[in-house]
Amino acid sequence: MIKPEIVSQLQKITGKEGVLTAKEDLNAYSYDGTTTWTHMPDVVVLPTTTEQISRVLKLANENKVPVTTRGAGTNVSGGSIPIKGGIVLCTVKMNKILDINKTNLTATVEPGVVLQNFNTALAKEGLFYPPDPQSFLGCTMGGTVAENAGGPYCVKYGVTKQYLLGLEVVLANGYVMKVGGVTVKNRTGYELVMLFTGSEGTLAVITKITVRLLPMPAASKTMMAVFDDMIAGGQAVSNIIGSGVVPAKSAFVDNFVIRRIEQMTPMGLPLDANALMLLMDDGNPAAVETDTQQIVDILKKSGAKEVKIAKDADEAAAYWKMRSAGFAAVFGAAHTVLAEDVAVPRDKLAEFIKKLGEISERTGFFIQYLGHAGDGNLHPSIFTDIRKEDEFARAQAAMGEIFRAALSLGGVLSGEHGIGLEKQRFLKEAMDPVALDLMKKIKGILDPNNILNPGKIWEEEGA
Amino acid sequence: MIKPEIVSQLQKITGKEGVLTAKEDLNAYSYDGTTTWTHMPDVVVLPTTTEQISRVLKLANENKVPVTTRGAGTNVSGGSIPIKGGIVLCTVKMNKILDINKTNLTATVEPGVVLQNFNTALAKEGLFYPPDPQSFLGCTMGGTVAENAGGPYCVKYGVTKQYLLGLEVVLANGYVMKVGGVTVKNRTGYELVMLFTGSEGTLAVITKITVRLLPMPAASKTMMAVFDDMIAGGQAVSNIIGSGVVPAKSAFVDNFVIRRIEQMTPMGLPLDANALMLLMDDGNPAAVETDTQQIVDILKKSGAKEVKIAKDADEAAAYWKMRSAGFAAVFGAAHTVLAEDVAVPRDKLAEFIKKLGEISERTGFFIQYLGHAGDGNLHPSIFTDIRKEDEFARAQAAMGEIFRAALSLGGVLSGEHGIGLEKQRFLKEAMDPVALDLMKKIKGILDPNNILNPGKIWEEEGA
Repeated sequence: MIKPEIVSQLQKITGKEGVLTAKEDLNAYSYDGTTTWTHMPDVVVLPTTTEQISRVLKLANENKVPVTTRGAGTNVSGGSIPIKGGIVLCTVKMNKILDINKTNLTATVEPGVVLQNFNTALAKEGLFYPPDPQSFLGCTMGGTVAENAGGPYCVKYGVTKQYLLGLEVVLANGYVMKVGGVTVKNRTGYELVMLFTGSEGTLAVITKITVRLLPMPAASKTMMAVFDDMIAGGQAVSNIIGSGVVPAKSAFVDNFVIRRIEQMTPMGLPLDANALMLLMDDGNPAAVETDTQQIVDILKKSGAKEVKIAKDADEAAAYWKMRSAGFAAVFGAAHTVLAEDVAVPRDKLAEFIKKLGEISERTGFFIQYLGHAGDGNLHPSIFTDIRKEDEFARAQAAMGEIFRAALSLGGVLSGEHGIGLEKQRFLKEAMDPVALDLMKKIKGILDPNNILNPGKIWEEEGA
Repeated sequence: MIKPEIVSQLQKITGKEGVLTAKEDLNAYSYDGTTTWTHMPDVVVLPTTTEQISRVLKLANENKVPVTTRGAGTNVSGGSIPIKGGIVLCTVKMNKILDINKTNLTATVEPGVVLQNFNTALAKEGLFYPPDPQSFLGCTMGGTVAENAGGPYCVKYGVTKQYLLGLEVVLANGYVMKVGGVTVKNRTGYELVMLFTGSEGTLAVITKITVRLLPMPAASKTMMAVFDDMIAGGQAVSNIIGSGVVPAKSAFVDNFVIRRIEQMTPMGLPLDANALMLLMDDGNPAAVETDTQQIVDILKKSGAKEVKIAKDADEAAAYWKMRSAGFAAVFGAAHTVLAEDVAVPRDKLAEFIKKLGEISERTGFFIQYLGHAGDGNLHPSIFTDIRKEDEFARAQAAMGEIFRAALSLGGVLSGEHGIGLEKQRFLKEAMDPVALDLMKKIKGILDPNNILNPGKIWEEEGA
């Protein structure tokens, strides 16, 4: 339990309005987008400036109080859960877009800026920032950097790290450090911006983010295709990319999701379809026309039973809303949903899907999955109930088999969600032990008292 | 001077044919693409396997012998010069393309593979790897990773780091470590691949490189435009990008280069042009047609006196050859050429060019420059003679003013060449001191005896 004098010092730093201690307030900061992990913080602090964050960290560091940084808490690996109690440092009040530079094609934002608000502001200037995690309506820019977020757009445009130019971070001792800059090319020393990217709040608190932008694509078309099975659908995406067209976005959902969506919000989806794919092409209008024709042709040749082209932006938005609804459908399907995230080499996707079937048969759990197609990133889910100890343990073991199947095919534990709490027990199987040790040593340099998001990414010794 | 028993142990590791000690052989490894720095190694070792490299490093580490890793030595910041003597570890014999996976759109190569050979092999499969430093005909893949190489293609496609998925590296103690993997999305812990990218051989020896690939663009067009001055040319590129078209490549040369090229290999260039821009658009054939028209329109509206579209691939190749000849023209222009590399925010390019003019007037040195346009990356050169102590010191001071001018505009010391030896005396002005210290501490973890490319990137204490 935190000392009362720490709380009163926090109040001096941020004002009383910036510190929460009531149980019902703390509760809101005890969980993230997973449904399996929760832990109460002792106190929540909502700073409004970098200077306040610096003072909070200095205080926490001197008193060895854990600090778990959090944006909107939409992450899905347990990363923002204050598993050791202490302080939750929530950045949502630092939500200013500091600069949008149309000529330099860059922007600088505070960490609490909501991704969707950022893109709305950019759209007014004809600009575009591609990373689009499923949580884009609520997630904060700071969270997307800390988690190196992906999303459907990443097939063509790459993940968050490919857009970061500069960061201001506050170190555990309170020092405010700048790394990188505002130029798109920068070869000044080691890639320190990348060190903090995807570090899940374990190395520093991110307080300013400079990203590169793209001009908004002039045109886009969305297509929907129905397949008899996922393997055929995945192969179709490979065929499309192999033909030289990289779709801007690509996603697929399975029969379970199709039926759930139709139950929740009827959209006229084919209830007997085993796999439904969404594809978007964007760019030059002439190119989008010819690309769309090429994609449709390849979809049909690759066995699509039905292909629809969205007739306008509204219909396209409805298709993509279905994909978002897919996630809601999965999360609402059971008391506890182990919703996971693995990636395999693109040429191993069919083999991985087969292995999922085998694991399902062997363990007796239905394995639902949706994914991105085109980048080998798949989200398998197992429905269970954390209150049924035995079943939950078997569900976790089944998920372990899924992770190991991905690793055995040259895949990775996480494509876009990060390790957090969710997957740390598998990390030793997924990484070179010396590389794992290197991460710990880097953490040791930056955070010698282990106050920043302790207990995350790797298992603690003796745990 | 290295002990004879070290040399004989190296011979045991690689065979006698893998170890060079004759002065005339060592001389070839004493310089890089700069014309200012040289230092003789004590011995050159040319390993053929990762295991040999592991044994070489173990030996060097135990005996605290400096090891400077080098590919083709085409780098232009002094990075591969064995400034402390010791061992040059040259990777050119490890030149196998280990895997090209068309479905996964990835390839794995040894570090000694020449970039041009890699792209030739990829082209046969309809694949494409964009990073294209000027040295592409000779530079090795290992070198491009160690220097995080850029090039004209990076305007649209980004630099080397944006294509790296996995590395095998040998640590100073000989341990062979794997980081990253073969999937395009990977959120397993910190971005350790990026730690080694651009680390200029100071953290480990890179022995395997896995990169993501793109399908070869179906079409491309190259344009040449003549402007009255660089500022107008730079503004034209900004206008093009602002209109939503990001050219695949962009480069410009000044009147000095135009005249030198015409002297060396007459191409019919306009001798009175003050700025000559090259632009390439690529992608979907229909898009390239409409983009080209749009680019030509904007070039003319932005004040181009003349715009030519290359009529076929041969003419396009001739245009780009001119750009390569531009570098040769610059390097051959004086006994010593301080050929530099800075980047400024795109919207500060005009201001920077004005500052170059002021520095030239104030110092009396003619400042030649060519650049990439579109990414703010500029290569200014000063012609001097290292044998004339006084003049050379003044030339270096003038270059220092150029660096400071770039920094004052929010630019960076290096856009693509790295720091090496060339710019380390300015590093303290260009980086947060704590970030600089962080780099040293990371180096300390990985290379506690400071054997890997010692004396590079930052100045040594007391130096």
